[in-house]
Amino acid sequence: MFSGAQISLYPMTDDFVGVILGALGALDPYRDRLRVETDDISTLLVGTPDIVFAAMRDLFVAAAASGKHCVLHATISRGCPGEPDDPICQVPELSGPIAPLAERKRQAMTAVSNAPSSGQPVAAQFSLYTLGIDQHMDEIYGCIDFLKSSGVFDRSKNFCTKLSGDAGSVFATVCEALTRFGPPAGHVTIDLTVSANSPTSL
Amino acid sequence: MFSGAQISLYPMTDDFVGVILGALGALDPYRDRLRVETDDISTLLVGTPDIVFAAMRDLFVAAAASGKHCVLHATISRGCPGEPDDPICQVPELSGPIAPLAERKRQAMTAVSNAPSSGQPVAAQFSLYTLGIDQHMDEIYGCIDFLKSSGVFDRSKNFCTKLSGDAGSVFATVCEALTRFGPPAGHVTIDLTVSANSPTSL
Repeated sequence: MFSGAQISLYPMTDDFVGVILGALGALDPYRDRLRVETDDISTLLVGTPDIVFAAMRDLFVAAAASGKHCVLHATISRGCPGEPDDPICQVPELSGPIAPLAERKRQAMTAVSNAPSSGQPVAAQFSLYTLGIDQHMDEIYGCIDFLKSSGVFDRSKNFCTKLSGDAGSVFATVCEALTRFGPPAGHVTIDLTVSANSPTSL
Repeated sequence: MFSGAQISLYPMTDDFVGVILGALGALDPYRDRLRVETDDISTLLVGTPDIVFAAMRDLFVAAAASGKHCVLHATISRGCPGEPDDPICQVPELSGPIAPLAERKRQAMTAVSNAPSSGQPVAAQFSLYTLGIDQHMDEIYGCIDFLKSSGVFDRSKNFCTKLSGDAGSVFATVCEALTRFGPPAGHVTIDLTVSANSPTSL
């Protein structure tokens, strides 16, 4: 298994470099469990989904604390058959047979209800893609069922689902979507956008 | 067929609202062939892929002309089985049987070589997902072959491919990736990020 994300942070301010540099310390508690590589477009985080999501959440909450309108985008993947297995990505949950959809929805709900609160309200939208399988929409619709009862569901949009709520719950919900839907060893990806302090938030 | 994109424009400046409003006029020539809906996270463009990509390109080039560091993100989709057919999205190319991969690569190359130049250099990265089919990596690898000879290939990254060059060629290349790879009536999506005027561009 290989899992991780390409993430980018967009602070809408003249001092965007300062906001980004000021937030990077939030990654420090996770650096021993992540591989991190940066270029001019994004930063690669390689690690288990729980660590990758916790790192993204803390980075985004630290940037949003600037009070500036900030957006984080992440291209998240697990199980891509074009990527090598990596020991830093091993988790027992992502092996073995696939559990019934109803059971996975319950597990996801439990995980979200146990997520710590961050105190930072966010809006988010994401698309879940389960690849290399027929009937991929069954897993998508199963995931949407879970989202509707997650407590952070906002609405369905064309091509994606919109969430809103505390950053802790929102990032936990998207992490559950990645890990509980699609086959355990399958190729699943997410296109995620998270926004805070927008002047046009509804 | 239903096709379109959820797009977001991120100008990294205190005057991000002014840069966005100043660029919106670039959409005017396409508005009669697009359905446009905006909320606090993104703007939905529904239309044929050629019109959606031309509109994204012109919007981004107009924003980048501000000289500010600007990023556009788009979640692009065609053929999602959960979306209704829409007459505004009909194109003859996306029906009928799938042509051999080599022929599609040639068609994509021709289209990119005919793309108009914009005068705006950009860096971009994107991920292509062909859904609901087995052997989806065959189409992905076929697309990567095309990208390597597109003239704007920069490098392969984990989870995505990086491009750089004139905005005209880069947007045309990503449009060809969406329309030529995966079955004509299949569900294909792209997670696209385009950047200009980055202080850290390499």
